[in-house]
Amino acid sequence: MKKLTLIITAVLAVAGAAQAQQALWGVPQLTSPEINSDKTVTFRILAPDAQEVKVTGDFLPTEKIQTPFGVFDGPGYADLVKDDKGVWSFTTAEPLAPELYSYSFIVDGLKTNDPSNVFLIRDTATLTNIFLVDGDRADLYKVNDVPHGTVSKVWYPSPSLGMNRRATIYTPAGYESSTESYPVLYLLHGMGGDENAWTELGRAAQILDNLIAQGKAKPMIVVMTNGNAAMEAAPGETSEGFKAPTTQLPKTMDGSFELAFPEVMAFVEQNYRTRQDKASRAIAGLSMGGFHSLHISKEYPEAFDYVGLFSAAIIPQAEPLPEIYQDMEGKLARQFADAPKLYWIAIGKDDFLYKANEEYRALLDSHGYPYQYFETPQGHIWRNWRIYLSEFLPQLFD
Amino acid sequence: MKKLTLIITAVLAVAGAAQAQQALWGVPQLTSPEINSDKTVTFRILAPDAQEVKVTGDFLPTEKIQTPFGVFDGPGYADLVKDDKGVWSFTTAEPLAPELYSYSFIVDGLKTNDPSNVFLIRDTATLTNIFLVDGDRADLYKVNDVPHGTVSKVWYPSPSLGMNRRATIYTPAGYESSTESYPVLYLLHGMGGDENAWTELGRAAQILDNLIAQGKAKPMIVVMTNGNAAMEAAPGETSEGFKAPTTQLPKTMDGSFELAFPEVMAFVEQNYRTRQDKASRAIAGLSMGGFHSLHISKEYPEAFDYVGLFSAAIIPQAEPLPEIYQDMEGKLARQFADAPKLYWIAIGKDDFLYKANEEYRALLDSHGYPYQYFETPQGHIWRNWRIYLSEFLPQLFD
Repeated sequence: MKKLTLIITAVLAVAGAAQAQQALWGVPQLTSPEINSDKTVTFRILAPDAQEVKVTGDFLPTEKIQTPFGVFDGPGYADLVKDDKGVWSFTTAEPLAPELYSYSFIVDGLKTNDPSNVFLIRDTATLTNIFLVDGDRADLYKVNDVPHGTVSKVWYPSPSLGMNRRATIYTPAGYESSTESYPVLYLLHGMGGDENAWTELGRAAQILDNLIAQGKAKPMIVVMTNGNAAMEAAPGETSEGFKAPTTQLPKTMDGSFELAFPEVMAFVEQNYRTRQDKASRAIAGLSMGGFHSLHISKEYPEAFDYVGLFSAAIIPQAEPLPEIYQDMEGKLARQFADAPKLYWIAIGKDDFLYKANEEYRALLDSHGYPYQYFETPQGHIWRNWRIYLSEFLPQLFD
Repeated sequence: MKKLTLIITAVLAVAGAAQAQQALWGVPQLTSPEINSDKTVTFRILAPDAQEVKVTGDFLPTEKIQTPFGVFDGPGYADLVKDDKGVWSFTTAEPLAPELYSYSFIVDGLKTNDPSNVFLIRDTATLTNIFLVDGDRADLYKVNDVPHGTVSKVWYPSPSLGMNRRATIYTPAGYESSTESYPVLYLLHGMGGDENAWTELGRAAQILDNLIAQGKAKPMIVVMTNGNAAMEAAPGETSEGFKAPTTQLPKTMDGSFELAFPEVMAFVEQNYRTRQDKASRAIAGLSMGGFHSLHISKEYPEAFDYVGLFSAAIIPQAEPLPEIYQDMEGKLARQFADAPKLYWIAIGKDDFLYKANEEYRALLDSHGYPYQYFETPQGHIWRNWRIYLSEFLPQLFD
């Protein structure tokens, strides 16, 4: 390897200069973030000419912010300090609790990613760096040394929407080499999300791998569809090209997605080894996906024995109501006449949808419909949705 | 939808402030890059406090740069100009030729991504924004309105390396619903790359979808392995966590990967509907992956009828040579005794491996071994590897 090593060394030394003509390999100059042995975390960025560098993220205590719409909890900020080499750094005062965190730098007012950290997640149009402090529940979000399922990006036909549509499908470890049939969870995202959200922001594949390996969840197929009926696929994955993500989409909560839902179920049941009875099907979703799960499960009451509403966006729709949203009480009565084995409602105390969910629970209570309720601190955030998924999965397919 | 719209509007207005507690939806304030109707491109960034903003990328003419190692072609730079709202912008003087381009901003000396563009690709430890100017060959790199194959991240056992390993596997549109068996291309990455490189930097899924839809390539399965024998999977996808990518890996070109190669082939042939004869197997790779393809194809001479060496890193290895690199001429003689239908060598005129490839061709010539040769301008860059893939695929599995 001697010659090769020499060539690489020479080449790395000029990598910056040469990269237009030789795709070589930049290596980060700094370690950032560094998770120290005491679980404090150090952030670093080389910015010799900057006047002020801050870090902001969900690992910092929130700050109350006055806005025209009231006082909100905003993300905290911390100042980095520059050394004589132009490296700015900040170390948290306390160890951080186990969690998947996100953060950004703000350099002289400009929000920027950490150039030393290639791990980013996209939430609609925002890209944010991530890091993980392990321990406790956060160990479910890690890739551990356990058998891993397959994660596939699959296109299925949706004649009613007039397009092929992209879904993310998880098959459990061993699926390829077995002849077994598996139960299926349909797992839906929120507004601004797409078929990538649950695996990227939600760490769904890791949570599934880990819970299945621990024997806490049954091996299952998980189908993560795109819940925006006007979209074929996530931004950048359609013939619209690299178009900026947006929340201003038509047909998100007008019944189109719910009515087309049997098409993705048909594709999955025809092309994967699935168990095809009510006891072997679950549906759950967050925010808009919780709203979709509510309506799909009551529209097709014989389909799902497990229903999960995570911070569900149970919001009145404009009149005239699409047919699927009409006669809510009649349809719920039909669904609960042969009640799902599990109807699971979860929300954070600070969620802006808390009250809407409270009212929905009161409606279920008024009819004596059985459900389970799970409440957490905090609001309408992925941290909660990862918790809900990891609490929901072990209850499926008993 | 009225109430919902109101809620969203209110919430967007405070999204920045509220995001620690409510995961809502930032939307970009600017369009950048904007591909104008005349195919000039405009870049924009809001940075009111910045003193100087530049853009650098492979869409700009290269500049000669003097380094201690000689004069190299370096990436070009262009200055952005600030308007009275603090928005900096730059428009290319000329229309850009069709291509997938990459770029970064440099704000007061700090390299940063474009905050208005969520589309990034990672090359080892460098994240760069991308955009695509369509037309000509670049239309192969686009998602077009054609049937799409499935892209899966799959783990296969590699007993000889003592681990499960991750591969990206492309199955052509219709695979799920058909009973047909398909030929297989094994497509290998270069040093610093991993099992994600060909689909992310190489646009392999789009090139395959488009060429298959046009009838120019046969429907095939494409297996993109991880060629670093010390790695289970790409950075962030292993139990090492979010560890910074590096090129300083052991066991990249010491024979380990080549010797373990029958294990991935066995997994694919046991678990996918594959045609399992020499005429239905191809292997190709770029740089280190070209080196791997050379050695794997001669080590298992009955396996592959199609071999592609893209900018192959044909570099002498340190003594003592691993067994697999010994007796090169004897093994080539065995391979070419029943010569592959296609042995295809491609390289750019400015590639730092040009001479090594010239010498290798001279060796083949000296024995009269048949091969095809394809030469392009420019060097050791993804632009060339996308071209090579799109030239290679139509020649497979006649």
